[in-house]
Amino acid sequence: MFNKILIANRGEIALRIIRTCREMGIKTVAVYSTADRESLHVRFADEAVCIGPPSSTESYLSIPKIMAAVEITNADAVHPGYGFLAENADFAEVCAEYGIKFIGPTPEQIRKMGDKITAKETMIKAGVPVVPGSEGLVKDVKHGLKIAEEIGYPVIIKATAGGGGKGMRVIWKAENFEDQWNKARQEAKASFGNDGIYIEKFVEEPRHIEFQIVGDQKGKVVHLSERDCSIQRRHQKLVEECPSPFMTDELRKAMGDAAVRAGEAINYEGVGTIEFLVDKYRNFYFMEMNTRIQVEHPVTEEVIDHDLIKEQIKIAAGERITGGNYYPTGHAIECRINAEDPFNDFRPSPGQIQSFHSSKGHGVRVDTHVYAGYKIPPYYDSMIAKLICRARTREECITKMERALDEFIIEGVKTTVPFHSRLMKDENFRKGDFHTGFLNDFDLSEDPS
Amino acid sequence: MFNKILIANRGEIALRIIRTCREMGIKTVAVYSTADRESLHVRFADEAVCIGPPSSTESYLSIPKIMAAVEITNADAVHPGYGFLAENADFAEVCAEYGIKFIGPTPEQIRKMGDKITAKETMIKAGVPVVPGSEGLVKDVKHGLKIAEEIGYPVIIKATAGGGGKGMRVIWKAENFEDQWNKARQEAKASFGNDGIYIEKFVEEPRHIEFQIVGDQKGKVVHLSERDCSIQRRHQKLVEECPSPFMTDELRKAMGDAAVRAGEAINYEGVGTIEFLVDKYRNFYFMEMNTRIQVEHPVTEEVIDHDLIKEQIKIAAGERITGGNYYPTGHAIECRINAEDPFNDFRPSPGQIQSFHSSKGHGVRVDTHVYAGYKIPPYYDSMIAKLICRARTREECITKMERALDEFIIEGVKTTVPFHSRLMKDENFRKGDFHTGFLNDFDLSEDPS
Repeated sequence: MFNKILIANRGEIALRIIRTCREMGIKTVAVYSTADRESLHVRFADEAVCIGPPSSTESYLSIPKIMAAVEITNADAVHPGYGFLAENADFAEVCAEYGIKFIGPTPEQIRKMGDKITAKETMIKAGVPVVPGSEGLVKDVKHGLKIAEEIGYPVIIKATAGGGGKGMRVIWKAENFEDQWNKARQEAKASFGNDGIYIEKFVEEPRHIEFQIVGDQKGKVVHLSERDCSIQRRHQKLVEECPSPFMTDELRKAMGDAAVRAGEAINYEGVGTIEFLVDKYRNFYFMEMNTRIQVEHPVTEEVIDHDLIKEQIKIAAGERITGGNYYPTGHAIECRINAEDPFNDFRPSPGQIQSFHSSKGHGVRVDTHVYAGYKIPPYYDSMIAKLICRARTREECITKMERALDEFIIEGVKTTVPFHSRLMKDENFRKGDFHTGFLNDFDLSEDPS
Repeated sequence: MFNKILIANRGEIALRIIRTCREMGIKTVAVYSTADRESLHVRFADEAVCIGPPSSTESYLSIPKIMAAVEITNADAVHPGYGFLAENADFAEVCAEYGIKFIGPTPEQIRKMGDKITAKETMIKAGVPVVPGSEGLVKDVKHGLKIAEEIGYPVIIKATAGGGGKGMRVIWKAENFEDQWNKARQEAKASFGNDGIYIEKFVEEPRHIEFQIVGDQKGKVVHLSERDCSIQRRHQKLVEECPSPFMTDELRKAMGDAAVRAGEAINYEGVGTIEFLVDKYRNFYFMEMNTRIQVEHPVTEEVIDHDLIKEQIKIAAGERITGGNYYPTGHAIECRINAEDPFNDFRPSPGQIQSFHSSKGHGVRVDTHVYAGYKIPPYYDSMIAKLICRARTREECITKMERALDEFIIEGVKTTVPFHSRLMKDENFRKGDFHTGFLNDFDLSEDPS
């Protein structure tokens, strides 16, 4: 087992990883930018190294600075968390060259799944359903129009290097194709330095349902059931839950089998997520794979009582997986608490937290790095806490979440707490009747009271 | 179901009850003394009524003041929590007279179990093993000496109205009998206004293992397995866990059956606890019954995923119990965090909490009414939080507790956190090798560092 793990991340996930390391008796090293001096991940790690100014490119995204911190502290493994360098194959490669274990998949696995076209080809070979579309990059507008004609409108065009909704456009009619094509390419070029574009059938009113998988170094892969992440705003997840209210035993079997096949196809090592779109007829299509721990992993931890960070570390240390797939007991929901004003287009609301009381009690978990007096820096992700509830049924879980949201006191900045409170009361949400476009029609006007 | 419940208590248990009421859609009324204006139970209740000055006898123990608050707010039920009026049969009777549901057993049940001699007689009739001793009160020294001779030394003499170690003496030899007898009577008279004394065989190196039971209004009683509360200091519990590391399937069956028989013998209504002493040969003896929710109830909630406050309310509303006994999955431990200096004879340490960060993460629950800036009043119980961990095994649970204790930040007052950290590292504790006298030999000198 590792002696000391350096955590190449910040915020709640850094703290989350420190907690598991402590429980495993592994020493921890935090790295931090000057904007994060007062963050709890710095306070709770055994050692902490300042790696630069607030700008991510000069701190959390700087491979040389992180490798220097590894060297200074003599860490023997690096946990990348999510975001930043978590899906950076070059970083994984540099770690390997230095003889440091990167806690995650191999550089080859990251590369294969990071490129959307290669990923899709791999899935087709593995017999995993994919959305019909261009096989590979689209050459030009004419080529694109031809493919769109073949698979039928609506179609969606996406940047091959993309993510987070950038370089992505839905096209409903041929006459809009050229204009949208040009815009998507420009955006892709600007955001990723790569204007490669591909086309897919646009699945209407889809659910986003993902499967958590784990693979060991010997090629054994199992799944840990699904998470429904359909409550999104501009492709950003806001609420996740397990089980999905849309799930059936039959669908879980089919999707779970496909997810395991996907992992086996690349001998996947570590924890990963296979994201699917599911249409209203319960047809499902591979969307992408995330080769890292997800923000929403606690939802799975609460229903299958499994520490996923511990799982990552054990697998990185060479432990084998014993046993089969895991299935949920009870229900869990996570609400992402962001420092944003939900009634003002979710505009970020950085600043100092004046008073802070996190929800507590039976079946309530809060993962956070903030506290009363903490200043939320404007440089990073606006997520300041994850509120997770578990209960025996979905209905009980929603009721518990309503109570927990009412109890969450964060003064000094705007947060998404009131948005979540409103969502939990929504009749369609309560019925489990929603898809990824659900929030387009959701009332986000401020309560006049 | 009730419309509005008044909570005749304060602190963490008042907040705990508010949480469940919210989840059940029941309105809540908090009552508070002027010392508790800033307590969270006041902030989170739907209504709050000030019932008097800090002194308990003029506030939380004043039946007229509490009944006035019931009347003002039009509550239809009262939850007494633990302590204060929770085992006061007169209060339960007054509630009944006013047509207000007292959430707990009937006055008769409280009285029967509140008097230790009647309780013991009832248990003998029900076939529940009791510690050999005087059948009823001891008349005088001569009578006491005769009984002690019969059952053999060591013996323990106890006040029939007693509790919390008051009026209680262990006697190892006949020559000390008279002196100890006089002291116990004086103490009993001063503490309870009743100097009735009885004698029992003193069980050496016993474990304190209690069974949680629930009975409905139709006489059905089930148990929810045990809690081991052997880690005590002067009869005050400090740590509780489930399962007991001393438990076997056979012993759980025998003790569980006895606990259910005990409840059935009085048609017990509500949640209650049958406390047993267990000697090293796994003989068990009824000690007493607590006719209320216990401080340590979350330990049970974490291993059987059952909300015990919800259970109390449902039973008070007339719901029936369906199904059988409950058995633990995994392991849970609770550490009581008191504002006391563990290295200075556990002297109370009231005052203002300067900074506060409660432990969080997977498998960690904190029940508390305090926060950064809160002033701990000197008038009441010194417990400021309960830290509860759950994990798949006892070993994992202890490791998690160590991590959670390390992470608990309370500045401004002394607390029992460092005591618990030391306990969790103790080899005998880790082996599960302890009894109620365990802390007598425990190192409570301050760390020189």
